[in-house]
Amino acid sequence: MEPVTSRVYQSLSQLKSPLFRGSLLTSASVLERHGTDESYHAARIPDAVAVASCEGDVQAVLRTCSDHGFPVIPYGAGTSLEGHIHALRGGLSLDVADMNSVLSVDPDEMTATVQCGILRSQLDNYLRDTGLFFPVDPGADATLGGMISTSASGTTTVRYGRMRDNVLGLKVVLPGGKKIQTGKERRGCSSAVDLTSMFIGAEGTLGVVTEATLKLYPRPEFSRSTVCTFQSMEDAIRTSVKILQQGVGVSRLEFVDETSIQAVNRAYQSWHEEKPSLFLEFQGSETSTKDEAETVKAIANKNDVIDVKTATELEDQKKLWHARHNSYYAILALRKGGKGVISDACVPISRLAECIRETKEDIADTNIFSAMIGHVGDGNFHVIFVVDLNNLDEIRTAKEITSRLSHRAIRMGGTCTGEHGVGMGKIPYLKAECDATSLELMRTLKKTLDPKGIMNPGKIIPE
Amino acid sequence: MEPVTSRVYQSLSQLKSPLFRGSLLTSASVLERHGTDESYHAARIPDAVAVASCEGDVQAVLRTCSDHGFPVIPYGAGTSLEGHIHALRGGLSLDVADMNSVLSVDPDEMTATVQCGILRSQLDNYLRDTGLFFPVDPGADATLGGMISTSASGTTTVRYGRMRDNVLGLKVVLPGGKKIQTGKERRGCSSAVDLTSMFIGAEGTLGVVTEATLKLYPRPEFSRSTVCTFQSMEDAIRTSVKILQQGVGVSRLEFVDETSIQAVNRAYQSWHEEKPSLFLEFQGSETSTKDEAETVKAIANKNDVIDVKTATELEDQKKLWHARHNSYYAILALRKGGKGVISDACVPISRLAECIRETKEDIADTNIFSAMIGHVGDGNFHVIFVVDLNNLDEIRTAKEITSRLSHRAIRMGGTCTGEHGVGMGKIPYLKAECDATSLELMRTLKKTLDPKGIMNPGKIIPE
Repeated sequence: MEPVTSRVYQSLSQLKSPLFRGSLLTSASVLERHGTDESYHAARIPDAVAVASCEGDVQAVLRTCSDHGFPVIPYGAGTSLEGHIHALRGGLSLDVADMNSVLSVDPDEMTATVQCGILRSQLDNYLRDTGLFFPVDPGADATLGGMISTSASGTTTVRYGRMRDNVLGLKVVLPGGKKIQTGKERRGCSSAVDLTSMFIGAEGTLGVVTEATLKLYPRPEFSRSTVCTFQSMEDAIRTSVKILQQGVGVSRLEFVDETSIQAVNRAYQSWHEEKPSLFLEFQGSETSTKDEAETVKAIANKNDVIDVKTATELEDQKKLWHARHNSYYAILALRKGGKGVISDACVPISRLAECIRETKEDIADTNIFSAMIGHVGDGNFHVIFVVDLNNLDEIRTAKEITSRLSHRAIRMGGTCTGEHGVGMGKIPYLKAECDATSLELMRTLKKTLDPKGIMNPGKIIPE
Repeated sequence: MEPVTSRVYQSLSQLKSPLFRGSLLTSASVLERHGTDESYHAARIPDAVAVASCEGDVQAVLRTCSDHGFPVIPYGAGTSLEGHIHALRGGLSLDVADMNSVLSVDPDEMTATVQCGILRSQLDNYLRDTGLFFPVDPGADATLGGMISTSASGTTTVRYGRMRDNVLGLKVVLPGGKKIQTGKERRGCSSAVDLTSMFIGAEGTLGVVTEATLKLYPRPEFSRSTVCTFQSMEDAIRTSVKILQQGVGVSRLEFVDETSIQAVNRAYQSWHEEKPSLFLEFQGSETSTKDEAETVKAIANKNDVIDVKTATELEDQKKLWHARHNSYYAILALRKGGKGVISDACVPISRLAECIRETKEDIADTNIFSAMIGHVGDGNFHVIFVVDLNNLDEIRTAKEITSRLSHRAIRMGGTCTGEHGVGMGKIPYLKAECDATSLELMRTLKKTLDPKGIMNPGKIIPE
């Protein structure tokens, strides 16, 4: 253990009571877990893990680490795909997973205030009997704090927006240990400099989000699902564009390529048609969703759809969505011990078909297994490579294709990251995506808020 | 003219060609117009007005004024209600109204990129034949730059959100004259520090917004309007809460009190029922809107509605909305030469009835004419006092009641400003609304971005 670590360790130990009531862990397995996310990035373990039990703990940790210039890496569920929780310069992993209470639910205002260590599934269970729900679903069972820090999105974003659209206010502990309440715990404030947005998507580089007030929505009275199968990817994308342009109120609009469906069929012995497909969901009343599903069918028919299946019973809808909901893990399961290298490029929907086609051509020359799924409602799609982590050639090829895809997306007016964030993995692309003055401004803001550079160093901002 | 002014004036004159191609005006009438908004705040005129013709002009002005430490106050249409454009410390009014082009419309992506001096009505006309529209409508015919800088909202916010939700990217000239492109001109980027949001609602205190990429929406295929008349304000608000909780897809949900309707009847010799009323609009297909209107009727019936009128023909809908659309100017017209003192407090909808009742009691003791209208969909309501600007007693009383209302809203978990912004008028309430560390952080950000303090000094942030 380096001297600085032991100093901080001692400081935190001294703080134990009453200022720091959490626990401080240094066992190898705990360090390993806190330095490893769900991505292909090799582990980078912290010097110690501080498990915070309350906001006061977070303040104590940040004050102490600020005094010692010691890095702090906020840790929630470790579901990052871009190495957000990797301790690139050592330091303290600040685990907030125990801070997972729902502090209040206001059914009239349709808001919930939660501690940020709460998992998406925990919040969902808690809300089950209220008639309300929180819509953002990035797939992984992340913490709300993690979802805020990457401004996550997911399958329902086409209707309900991303995290940025669904957070009303935050409590944040700043690097020196002071705390602020940003925004109001209600809808529609116009006033002053928007501090809330500053911390959404900041990936823990500006402070630690400890509480959030979230927008909730009424659980829909009725839902209906449709799957459209096409001969070509282009037909499917053209159909999506038309659906969005006509303002059909879809709650999900997902594209799954034929390879992903093959993977699902192989993994689950199922018999979904192995063609490019659109998966749609409609929420509302029985008549309004019927109306919408019929409009979609008419649009699909004009774009040479092969088959349209619709379901209204919950069980039938689940069966219909099976190939989409299970695609990611089915793709990974194709290869024992395989890890995913996943891109999340995002392009204007008018360029989506072109971007997918060019990327498919790029992949065609390699022999790594890959598949594509996409939240086409917001132009966001994933290429998933299943690589053997011991095969450096494969990893290099996957990274090269991902790199070309990121630059392609940026060139087409899109972004290298639609939902996973920048982390350590996408820093090079940010330079291509943002102008030099914007990057300089980000650096200046970082320096202003975190003058000692303790918060999640080496993430987001190119140095 | 003070020495500093003439120095800047000379600098700008020297810059004329080729760096500053706009015009520099100092006639009394131009100065007067640029120091006066639509509010009751007494005029505070600038030393000169620079009319910018392009982004390069804005850069030249900001560079020069930065060199001289000379205040710059961005000016669009002058429709502010909180003295945003008042030259509190003299300086240069930077008029961007000539920068009013639509730069591009992308019908597939459903976005428009515009120069920020464009008026809402100009954009609306431009988009008329595209099948798309921009939904945010604050009532006044403001510039998009002004709407961005106050994060304006309006009657359609309940469905489409406020400015903050509808801006995808900005071009901003920073105080020293450098420019940045924030965000991407497309939906759904998750990456990095959110510079776009920083400038939305910043009221020109951090830089000058010159271009914006906006979300557009398909013009709805069909719309339907309903007016519900109630015996009491409480019944109307209860109905609103239930409508929102059931997730009925209203596109407008407005409350108008009996006094406002009396004012409309007097001004237009019309015969609307003089009762607390809800004005609703539904957008979608013929069947979905019918469905929604019937759900609303059922909810209203359970809350003792007196009368429900519905219209589907455009002309009939206009007639139905007449009392809402004309209420503001009808209220002002009650008194020749009267000016409005308008609050825009915003409270959680569960406290709205209580907040309105307490405010009405507060007003009952005075003899100033006042009326209330509100965007109840987001808890935002306006008390409009019609005052004689020569009667200082009246102005004082109106300001006192507004002050008590602002503090009441903050106490109830709301905000002093739902849509008009802070400007110079609401600075005192911001102190009550934000914690000291948040205000300190805002001050630090302001100082970081605008070290010489030239951008719209004396606005937003308490000193």
